Amino acid sequence: MKINGTAYRTIWLGDDGWSVEIIDQTRLPHEFVTARLATMEDAAVAIKTMQVRGAPLIGATAAYGVCLALREDASDEALEAAVAHLAEQRPTAVNLRWALDEMLHAVRNLPREDRVAAAYARAARLCEEDVETCRMIGVHGLKLIEEIAARKAPGEPVNVLTHCNAGWIACVDWGTATSPVYQAHDKGIQMHVWVDETRPRNQGASLTAYELGAHGVPHTIVVDNAGGHLMQHGKVDVVIVGTDRVTANGDVCNKIGTYLKALAAKDNDIPFYVALPHSTIDWQLDDGFLIPIEERSSDEVLKMPGRLADGSVVTVEIAAPGSGAGNPAFDVTPARLVSGLITERGVCEASKEGLDRLYGDRD
Amino acid sequence: MKINGTAYRTIWLGDDGWSVEIIDQTRLPHEFVTARLATMEDAAVAIKTMQVRGAPLIGATAAYGVCLALREDASDEALEAAVAHLAEQRPTAVNLRWALDEMLHAVRNLPREDRVAAAYARAARLCEEDVETCRMIGVHGLKLIEEIAARKAPGEPVNVLTHCNAGWIACVDWGTATSPVYQAHDKGIQMHVWVDETRPRNQGASLTAYELGAHGVPHTIVVDNAGGHLMQHGKVDVVIVGTDRVTANGDVCNKIGTYLKALAAKDNDIPFYVALPHSTIDWQLDDGFLIPIEERSSDEVLKMPGRLADGSVVTVEIAAPGSGAGNPAFDVTPARLVSGLITERGVCEASKEGLDRLYGDRD
Repeated sequence: MKINGTAYRTIWLGDDGWSVEIIDQTRLPHEFVTARLATMEDAAVAIKTMQVRGAPLIGATAAYGVCLALREDASDEALEAAVAHLAEQRPTAVNLRWALDEMLHAVRNLPREDRVAAAYARAARLCEEDVETCRMIGVHGLKLIEEIAARKAPGEPVNVLTHCNAGWIACVDWGTATSPVYQAHDKGIQMHVWVDETRPRNQGASLTAYELGAHGVPHTIVVDNAGGHLMQHGKVDVVIVGTDRVTANGDVCNKIGTYLKALAAKDNDIPFYVALPHSTIDWQLDDGFLIPIEERSSDEVLKMPGRLADGSVVTVEIAAPGSGAGNPAFDVTPARLVSGLITERGVCEASKEGLDRLYGDRD
Repeated sequence: MKINGTAYRTIWLGDDGWSVEIIDQTRLPHEFVTARLATMEDAAVAIKTMQVRGAPLIGATAAYGVCLALREDASDEALEAAVAHLAEQRPTAVNLRWALDEMLHAVRNLPREDRVAAAYARAARLCEEDVETCRMIGVHGLKLIEEIAARKAPGEPVNVLTHCNAGWIACVDWGTATSPVYQAHDKGIQMHVWVDETRPRNQGASLTAYELGAHGVPHTIVVDNAGGHLMQHGKVDVVIVGTDRVTANGDVCNKIGTYLKALAAKDNDIPFYVALPHSTIDWQLDDGFLIPIEERSSDEVLKMPGRLADGSVVTVEIAAPGSGAGNPAFDVTPARLVSGLITERGVCEASKEGLDRLYGDRD
């Protein structure tokens, strides 16, 4: 998508044809800075320190990390060491492991002299596949937005509410929840996005607001508390969120607070959609409440980074000294509260039947 | 209530018998500092700058402001000027106007030489009435907590979730939503409070956590997004919140986000109570959605005060530069989601019938 008029992806090959460029997301939203990855270790550090974040982008970065390792040493030993090292940078990211397996599969049986070219080809294809998946989510989600737009008076925007960041900067391009929004905006449909701040970590206020603003999509940040009130007063037409995992029965695990927005949408007869690629579906579980919920550091609740007036970035303590905090990172929205799942294959009911209809051909 | 072992109120007479002492709440939660009000203007500034906050405490401070004015000049002109000046410090606070009317009524027909003593007596009584009202809210709310405690296994605390600050530091003592909690704790019932951070302004993380911690009540700060998840997992026994206005039909206007917690409580069969003094009931409105909702400064969403490592307090910008914010300050929880209203006269259904049963003798 665009950043102040220039089209970007989150990861791309440098002009030299082999080094890898990324947007350094640790500097967002305060500064837009790109970084160059010239070695496998650069890629590992970028993943570890969250210069890149979001499951698809982590996978893409790891894939290019394997390319950079093979440039220096294309042996089996180097390949295996690179895969092992990259995999341990974010141990819980499923896409990271998947992308590394894809890279192993693509190069391990090739002669050493062919491995670098094959690796770059596979990494590039992996990125293109992610872009196409996200684009198709947008194609299907766009129809839902067009239906809403058709019922609007001229000059009235379609109001979308979103939670957390399921945007293009978590993927290679387009994003998941944001893809229908960008496609509608680019097509000339008047859009306005209510961006939930998304405490803790503030991915909404910092990342979603940043990427919407940089692409030129009108939006307004609100605290996570505000969405219910906005829905009661007719200011939200549709809720679209991303997800970290959808179980086979259509339950949705996503950033903490998603469930509260789904309840409010239900109470106010507002459609609540979840956008996801098929890789997010966990076919092994048929109950979202079986998903273990990560309890993260209380520092995410008790401390906050921000800019001082001079532009420097500091972290401040915001709570009563001595008080502790709990920090469950995700919650589960039961399928009964979900109007539909927007996937790269189309929109389906959040149910076993709905998912089977789209993915009946899965292994 | 107690601050680190010492019993405090939010406002009290100094040892000299005429000056007024307050807790300077602009310094909370980062520092505990008291301030001395020696003139009417000191009281006006304390109200204006939010050294005192919370409707009951603002009223009490204004009452003592009248006392301080009369000490210097007990004429009708001075009395009227003091009332007019104090009233305009926080124009929307209903209790402020009410307290000043009470003071006028108590002194205006008295000879000048009797006015100062009468004013101090009325101000003291006004404080005592507030303390007694809040204490009785706690007496009635305590029964609800005792019923829950009776069903708990030994060693298991009663888990209360609260939103915003309806605590003793907004009143003279006890608070409204916190009064049942303090009474249960003081009686030896094992209590634990989930304290919603309460964005924006963070009254939960800063003020509620501060006062619970200072009194020794176990508590855990959570982001506003977390309450639904906690309720889904059986970690909340009861929700108790305060309110800014209850309409005659039982609809509850309170800090933004309250509605979302009421929805989650309903979805999980958890009782949702609202604690209030009768002065909060608006008998003129019978639909909460007729209450105008204040839209406050976007700075409350986009900026955040906090402590640096050296203890100094700064304000940082936390969102994407250039993004705007919406900031509705309150929302309305429909009576259908409220299990009951806890008042100084007892607990009643959130309905016209429930309120009429307790307050049928009103003017």
